[in-house]
Amino acid sequence: MEEKGISRAVIERLPRYFRYLGELKDSGVERISSHDLSVLMRVTASQIRQDLNHFGGFGQQGYGYNVESLYEEISRILGLNREHRLIIVGAGNLGQALANYVNFEKRGFIIKGIFDIDEKKHGRLIRDIPICRMEDMKQFIRDNDIDIAVLTIPKSEAVEVAEELVKSGIKGIWNFAHTDLNVPDELAVVNVHLYDSLLELSYKLGGKTQ
Amino acid sequence: MEEKGISRAVIERLPRYFRYLGELKDSGVERISSHDLSVLMRVTASQIRQDLNHFGGFGQQGYGYNVESLYEEISRILGLNREHRLIIVGAGNLGQALANYVNFEKRGFIIKGIFDIDEKKHGRLIRDIPICRMEDMKQFIRDNDIDIAVLTIPKSEAVEVAEELVKSGIKGIWNFAHTDLNVPDELAVVNVHLYDSLLELSYKLGGKTQ
Repeated sequence: MEEKGISRAVIERLPRYFRYLGELKDSGVERISSHDLSVLMRVTASQIRQDLNHFGGFGQQGYGYNVESLYEEISRILGLNREHRLIIVGAGNLGQALANYVNFEKRGFIIKGIFDIDEKKHGRLIRDIPICRMEDMKQFIRDNDIDIAVLTIPKSEAVEVAEELVKSGIKGIWNFAHTDLNVPDELAVVNVHLYDSLLELSYKLGGKTQ
Repeated sequence: MEEKGISRAVIERLPRYFRYLGELKDSGVERISSHDLSVLMRVTASQIRQDLNHFGGFGQQGYGYNVESLYEEISRILGLNREHRLIIVGAGNLGQALANYVNFEKRGFIIKGIFDIDEKKHGRLIRDIPICRMEDMKQFIRDNDIDIAVLTIPKSEAVEVAEELVKSGIKGIWNFAHTDLNVPDELAVVNVHLYDSLLELSYKLGGKTQ
């Protein structure tokens, strides 16, 4: 595994490289220099070279990067050669929005079930995905070999549910609850704190609205 | 303005400080040492001291931080002493989910209108917020003194809509479209690229599922 010991900052930039390379590929571009990629992505060419050097020698002096090879390699590094099976915990507005998002599925992130405490929602389907009782979550995770749980519940419930997920053997949590989860280090967690992100925008507007 | 020249990394951490201080305040905690805050937030005490030093001397040797003062100060720095008026562009699942999110409103982020190309949605209300025609967006922004646009549209439309928003005098864009926007530097943009975030999780799962 050549990608060992990669810093968190590089990892966070990888999906963005992947997105740009995918767009280039779709536009029929076969190769690109680190300079041209840097203009497109608005980062320095030296950062691009440094970042991509972690993943082997895709760039060749005077040739640039082979778009398709680099795209495929990053795809593999990002784990897109594997299928992931997801549950969504919380069938509120955001949970339903994510359940309706078919693009994730096309990339191998298959949503198998949705869980909610609200009895009135049980038995309903979103696309073909059933909304189930929280009591059945643990068994469902085992029966369906679920590796990712998407948490779209209020923060007051998130801590308890996260503990239950840990006990159920879940591998990763995509956390939209407005709190940081205190889970064992071997669990992968990525947070999407929407309100934090809105506050960042509010901060940036500071100098622009007054 | 003592907060000039603050690095992007510090700015991105500010909402998290704000969140933890808010929770401490709600729990009745009046003061906290950088050590205790560092244990809670899982960052080093030295980083906390460095970060918060940008905003003046709230920490006192042997006393720690006054939770309420620091909370109020960060609240001010984040621009929460001002009201923001928002529109949502794109009344799909995610746009509707965000429109239904009343917590933003409680903090001064008031959603005034929703815009969509789909005629069938025009005239409908989400909570009390009308879904309007795209053609009326420009005028609406001016009439209602809108400063933030939330983009929840496909990336194929995002570039064109962003250009229109710039011409309408919008100050900030909260961008959920799966593309980076090419807008003038004076515009504040914060991206929430959900798929990038899911890929980060997929990467982290790499060593855990095989």
